[in-house]
Amino acid sequence: MGRSQKKRSATQPRRKMAYYFGKTRTEGNGKQKELLGGKGANLAEMTGIGLPVPPGFTISTEVCELYYKSRRKLPKGLMQQVRKQIATLEKETGKNFGDANNPLLVSVRSGAAVSMPGMMNTILNLGLNDTSVIGLAKATDNTRFAYDAYRRLINMYGDVVMDVSHEHFENAFNKIKASYDARSDTDVPAEGLEKLCKAYKGVYRDHVGHEFPQDPYLQLEYAIEAVFKSWMQARAVRYRQVENIIGLCGTAVNIQYMVYGNMGDDSGTGVAFTRDPSTGKNKFYGEFLINAQGEDVVAGIRTPQPVDQMPKWNKRVHQQLLGIKNKLERHYRDVQDIEFTIERGKLYMLQTRSGKRTGAAAVKIACDMVKEKLINEKTALGRIPANDLTQLLLPSFDPVAKKAAQVLAVGLPASPGAAVGKLAFTAEDAASRTADGEDVLLVRKETSPEDIDGMHAARGILTSTGGMTSHAAVVARGWGRCCVAGAGEIQIDEKHKKLHVKGRTFGANDTISIDGSTGQVMTGQVATKVPKLSGDFSRVMGWSSKYSRLSIRTNADTPADAKRARDFGAHGIGLCRTEHMFFEGERIVAMREMILAESVEARQAALRRLLPYQRKDFVGILTAMKGFPVTIRLLDPPLHEFVPHDSKSQTVVAKRLGIPLSKVKARVTQLHEANPMLGHRGCRLSITYPEILQMQVTAIVEATILCRKKRVRAMPEIMIPLIGTAREIQLLRTLAEQAIQQVQHKKRFAGSLDIPIGTMIEIPRAALTADQVAEHADFFSFGTNDLTQMTFGYSRDDVNTFLPDYLSKEILDRDPFESLDTTGVGQLVEMGTTKGRNVKRKLKVGICGEHGGDPDSIRFCHAAGLDYVSCSPFRVPIARLAAAQAALG
Amino acid sequence: MGRSQKKRSATQPRRKMAYYFGKTRTEGNGKQKELLGGKGANLAEMTGIGLPVPPGFTISTEVCELYYKSRRKLPKGLMQQVRKQIATLEKETGKNFGDANNPLLVSVRSGAAVSMPGMMNTILNLGLNDTSVIGLAKATDNTRFAYDAYRRLINMYGDVVMDVSHEHFENAFNKIKASYDARSDTDVPAEGLEKLCKAYKGVYRDHVGHEFPQDPYLQLEYAIEAVFKSWMQARAVRYRQVENIIGLCGTAVNIQYMVYGNMGDDSGTGVAFTRDPSTGKNKFYGEFLINAQGEDVVAGIRTPQPVDQMPKWNKRVHQQLLGIKNKLERHYRDVQDIEFTIERGKLYMLQTRSGKRTGAAAVKIACDMVKEKLINEKTALGRIPANDLTQLLLPSFDPVAKKAAQVLAVGLPASPGAAVGKLAFTAEDAASRTADGEDVLLVRKETSPEDIDGMHAARGILTSTGGMTSHAAVVARGWGRCCVAGAGEIQIDEKHKKLHVKGRTFGANDTISIDGSTGQVMTGQVATKVPKLSGDFSRVMGWSSKYSRLSIRTNADTPADAKRARDFGAHGIGLCRTEHMFFEGERIVAMREMILAESVEARQAALRRLLPYQRKDFVGILTAMKGFPVTIRLLDPPLHEFVPHDSKSQTVVAKRLGIPLSKVKARVTQLHEANPMLGHRGCRLSITYPEILQMQVTAIVEATILCRKKRVRAMPEIMIPLIGTAREIQLLRTLAEQAIQQVQHKKRFAGSLDIPIGTMIEIPRAALTADQVAEHADFFSFGTNDLTQMTFGYSRDDVNTFLPDYLSKEILDRDPFESLDTTGVGQLVEMGTTKGRNVKRKLKVGICGEHGGDPDSIRFCHAAGLDYVSCSPFRVPIARLAAAQAALG
Repeated sequence: MGRSQKKRSATQPRRKMAYYFGKTRTEGNGKQKELLGGKGANLAEMTGIGLPVPPGFTISTEVCELYYKSRRKLPKGLMQQVRKQIATLEKETGKNFGDANNPLLVSVRSGAAVSMPGMMNTILNLGLNDTSVIGLAKATDNTRFAYDAYRRLINMYGDVVMDVSHEHFENAFNKIKASYDARSDTDVPAEGLEKLCKAYKGVYRDHVGHEFPQDPYLQLEYAIEAVFKSWMQARAVRYRQVENIIGLCGTAVNIQYMVYGNMGDDSGTGVAFTRDPSTGKNKFYGEFLINAQGEDVVAGIRTPQPVDQMPKWNKRVHQQLLGIKNKLERHYRDVQDIEFTIERGKLYMLQTRSGKRTGAAAVKIACDMVKEKLINEKTALGRIPANDLTQLLLPSFDPVAKKAAQVLAVGLPASPGAAVGKLAFTAEDAASRTADGEDVLLVRKETSPEDIDGMHAARGILTSTGGMTSHAAVVARGWGRCCVAGAGEIQIDEKHKKLHVKGRTFGANDTISIDGSTGQVMTGQVATKVPKLSGDFSRVMGWSSKYSRLSIRTNADTPADAKRARDFGAHGIGLCRTEHMFFEGERIVAMREMILAESVEARQAALRRLLPYQRKDFVGILTAMKGFPVTIRLLDPPLHEFVPHDSKSQTVVAKRLGIPLSKVKARVTQLHEANPMLGHRGCRLSITYPEILQMQVTAIVEATILCRKKRVRAMPEIMIPLIGTAREIQLLRTLAEQAIQQVQHKKRFAGSLDIPIGTMIEIPRAALTADQVAEHADFFSFGTNDLTQMTFGYSRDDVNTFLPDYLSKEILDRDPFESLDTTGVGQLVEMGTTKGRNVKRKLKVGICGEHGGDPDSIRFCHAAGLDYVSCSPFRVPIARLAAAQAALG
Repeated sequence: MGRSQKKRSATQPRRKMAYYFGKTRTEGNGKQKELLGGKGANLAEMTGIGLPVPPGFTISTEVCELYYKSRRKLPKGLMQQVRKQIATLEKETGKNFGDANNPLLVSVRSGAAVSMPGMMNTILNLGLNDTSVIGLAKATDNTRFAYDAYRRLINMYGDVVMDVSHEHFENAFNKIKASYDARSDTDVPAEGLEKLCKAYKGVYRDHVGHEFPQDPYLQLEYAIEAVFKSWMQARAVRYRQVENIIGLCGTAVNIQYMVYGNMGDDSGTGVAFTRDPSTGKNKFYGEFLINAQGEDVVAGIRTPQPVDQMPKWNKRVHQQLLGIKNKLERHYRDVQDIEFTIERGKLYMLQTRSGKRTGAAAVKIACDMVKEKLINEKTALGRIPANDLTQLLLPSFDPVAKKAAQVLAVGLPASPGAAVGKLAFTAEDAASRTADGEDVLLVRKETSPEDIDGMHAARGILTSTGGMTSHAAVVARGWGRCCVAGAGEIQIDEKHKKLHVKGRTFGANDTISIDGSTGQVMTGQVATKVPKLSGDFSRVMGWSSKYSRLSIRTNADTPADAKRARDFGAHGIGLCRTEHMFFEGERIVAMREMILAESVEARQAALRRLLPYQRKDFVGILTAMKGFPVTIRLLDPPLHEFVPHDSKSQTVVAKRLGIPLSKVKARVTQLHEANPMLGHRGCRLSITYPEILQMQVTAIVEATILCRKKRVRAMPEIMIPLIGTAREIQLLRTLAEQAIQQVQHKKRFAGSLDIPIGTMIEIPRAALTADQVAEHADFFSFGTNDLTQMTFGYSRDDVNTFLPDYLSKEILDRDPFESLDTTGVGQLVEMGTTKGRNVKRKLKVGICGEHGGDPDSIRFCHAAGLDYVSCSPFRVPIARLAAAQAALG
């Protein structure tokens, strides 16, 4: 979806092309980012509120658009307007462009509506030539400074405007340095720099074919064009692709009076935040350098001092800055990130913008500013990027300890968090060792549904193959379990229980640490920090609930997950999967017996053995989520996933079940499908084997009755997956209702159970025929994972073969499994909701795909009128905040 | 879509429950099938037009519905109405119900709105009791006849109304026969039958608990109820499922004066068609039996005489029948299938209905009736079931030869036709032996895309596993190639090239015959008949073109197929698949080299070797279809399908390509996908490997220029498959246009090529965003095979695991891969068409899934406003006719 700006037609530009800012007059303001770019609008705004900003003017983004529309020609009349603005600037500063005594120098900088730091071109010291350089030397009484400025201009201009490779200038400089035996640039005296300017002009002439232009207006014209050109240079285009910046018409050009922080020890430069961007503490926070230019702070050659130390140097300027900090926060009502320069004791503000901050800081600042009555609760909520809450919720490595740790390999940051443990090479091992109280990491080439118990038991998961949407990654994210996937440098020898990496070998008793936020795999036990949730966090959650319309549920399959989500504020379970319940211990034996059964009776016998396990599971989950609805999805995956595929395991099963191995093999082969995603699964299983549905519904109802008898307010909902036709749900609903009645009768439970029966809408046809389906459903839950697979025709397991190309070629803006495709899949969600509610006005509608935890998708769900979203426990707070933000628009 | 009848509410029945037909008055007519059932409406209609029909009355289907709605109770007032109608019948016939002298006897028969032959109950001779049997004997002067009728009534009534097993009556009869030493029923004298009646009444009393009812009204009441009950008996319910008869409210009951064809040698019975139903020849056609009842004709115990012979027996009746034939045809304006009985020289008409006929007969009759001015062309077109044309187009076995053949096994009739050949156990073998002039059948466990050349070469295909939608079945139907699939009794030993069945073994040089219309597998060479198309066929095709709006294209991948389809009247190719072109001989080597290439350059080199083959293919096809558009689909299947999967073949490839085996294995593994249907295929290949698209487009353009230079009007269209987003087609269209320009430039071709570039709409998202897609497409072609897969979430390769259950449980009316699901998939077709045309008013829209040859789907495509349908060559005539029928409404 990307940040997009409405385009204005380029064929009819405003007559005005350049906008002045300064004491004389200010023609723009902070709201005109689209027209003046972010920087230009900000300079105008700062000037407007009386801050000491070096004066100048901004050429609008429309001019850039026009430049490209007219095949890279500057529009007529532009330079006349520029000359007029320069005249004003000359009057205001008392300096003249190209003057031999006290010349006006300007910077020429890009500035689009959205910040693209370092991606476009800048030219400084423009206005210098062989005459005015002498004037500058006179006016500053500093010849060295003047020639240093001039050589920088020639270099920058040659490089940026005329495409002369920097190395040619570098070579010339090295010759001069050698002649003075100078180690660094600063060792070269004024005289040497004067020679250097001559040498640079030679380089320029040799490579460009004409002399370095002496007319400052000519310099300016070419510089303006160079900035426009840089809008389409490869790295800028690429940046916009990566950052998904679309719909802009171009860059503005800011021409501004040059001020210098390097005019002596009464000069300096710095950057600061009006509050601490890391903790959010209300304290002026930043750094400055004496006798230096802005680039020097960024370059990190000299170590800057913290702004606290400034009073020792210049108390007045420090006081002035503190005043500006307050003025800015009162004006912008947000933390500002500022740049300033002191030229001979005079403070100039060069930039202010909203300050980036960590999740923790965002929460604290928002709450503090509400307390300070700078903003209200609604604005506060809008100030916290919902996804950034992740940082507050998951464990992380202690930064100091991590710095000292040895990184073995870097994989994909598949599921954030920090995990430490010994190595378990099989899921069984992970499960049993965890049960024995050990902390383990499950280490696999890749994981499969059979590993699910081990994955759940482990502290973290490390795989050597697979991408961000591999089984391990998807499952781990669902649980908030730390996972590093596809660490290709690692070789896993499952047979011998060894992990090889970079010539080293680790065994079952070695400890490793993995960082799911960076993909790093480290040796030994790296210390972790467990997050502590602040009072501010609770405050933000409270506001979120106050302003949300959407209800937030969680996807949880165990009482522990349900409890965690509830603690995070989940109001029920939107998706309780029942399949992984069948893998543990004795259960899988009965499950396999069921699958291998050759008659309905044999199948029923096996199901009868599974029933008590299911009932126990449901009692646990319903109890953990008492008072809130728990949507239980009936068995969904193809039976194929439950049977063993290697000969050895098949022999074990055959022995265990007392049937010939050949029969096991035959059934496994028979269950194989060409496209299991589109095969015999979901409700299709219940159509062919109604006894599976009957067992599961019986377990749900018996569990509910057990809870109710203990006065636990169990509120199950039965969800039938993969419905594609109204007749499926009609038939299965009838079966489920019969099973409910039978249990109620058998258990002599007289009260009303009131168990809603609904369906997942995850097949396009179900959305298309939602009016028919709704007649038999008490609720809809959009399973947007599968719906995305089928609407796009993308197998999630295989999509990595082409998805990277699709993202890099901008065919897709985002991975549609990460953020809901509102254009296509969203149409089906809206259609399903509308058609369903046309038949049943009060039909409850939710979403339970992974999109339920993605803020952009939540915004869409709000707009589409859904009742709730369901997401993994660790994303519940994010979803709560995002829901409030969606409601606040 | 099954034959469906609108339901009328059952809670408000018409006050009238029984409708009289006879000389006295006729209360119904032929249009009231819904109310009176087919039989009842027909009896009323025949009576109305003055035919000699035994009088009677019909109890309406509404009464049956009311019977079930009121928990199986006959509605109040029914029996009063019945008594009134019986009184009229008594007056008209001069006989009285239960009379001791000349009793009125009636038949009680079912009759729903749609014919369900033999599925419901019938009771004859009702009205006989201990008194009236004597009356009947007197009146007919035939004691034996009277007691025979009475014993039949007791037997039928006991069986049908009271559920007494027929064997009990059988046993009683055997005792009597033994006592008379009688071999057959007819050997038992009148006296024996009188005893038999007594014995039967005993059987009745013993098993029912009361005496056989003597009150004829009581008999009648129970009989009516028994007919109603039979509506819901298992076999009737099952029949409606199988025949897909839905929405009926129940059966009517016809109570009719009994006439007897077995009252002596002046009596008889027969069935006839007003024209020959096999050839369509305008000749009275039928059979009759002297001194027999209707059942005897059906039972086949005695051999009936052709109706031509009737003048020898009774010229007057024969003349009367010929008159009735003409009257009926003039009245119904269609061939009639009639039943008649002659009682003591008097002709009675028992039934008339539209006569079923073969495809050939349908064509001839329709044409003849137009010539005879009985019907007009439009009506004629409506009289030919489009699918029945198949019979005229495909070879079939000579019926006499087939009767003599030995059937080895019966598989699924996967693709109609007749094929004879020696056995080829591999595709290569089939291809090479065919090239050597041999006729072979390809015999495989199942087929895969690698077998495609062999399948195409073979006369027919026989598989031992797989269903109606298996690879073999689908591909064969596409080509009109005969195929028997899933013949489970057959074991195929590919290694030793042997076929085992029922203890017999066949080798490569043995000949077998397969019937794709019945699934039969026969030994030896069974003689076949090659169809010859009549002038009438051409006439029907001509009318079809005259009244169609839809254009008909064909799916063809070879010049031969294109030619065949063109001969059948196809106006272009709607789908030319390019993938099977890569399997032949040297091509597959280059193809595999391309897939195994590790750099763009190596891939391009391999593609350059494929280019000449492709160009040659395209020249052939474009030439065969000159003057008509040829839509060429770019490469679609996943690359996985082209690489070898067994170690042996992999070694061959590795050697051939001079690369290590490990590399081949690694690439094959890498290409493996969990769900290839939703994987890296279609346009996704062109996105990641643009050079494939470039090669194919280059081949198309070069072929076009070659043709044009030879003044062959080649009209290619480039179709990009599997589009899901507008940006895909935008990008690929640009690439294709560049390639076109390059070739044009290189070949110095100055003229306009005008090659449209369009897309398949086969992914739900493409239909949902068709407005965006249409901006970059010159045409849409709905690929309804894949669209059905993704809209339903059904993998066509796996659907047989649950589809049979889905059909038997009536979750689906029909296999959605056979006939387009208009409710769901159809919505996307309509949406795609509408959205596309909103952007491009004149966007050409077609369909190229297998549905393009299905009459019901064609009707839908017509209504949806499509421009053309494309189907396999052999279905072109069917599609032409269906298109006309759709246009005629």
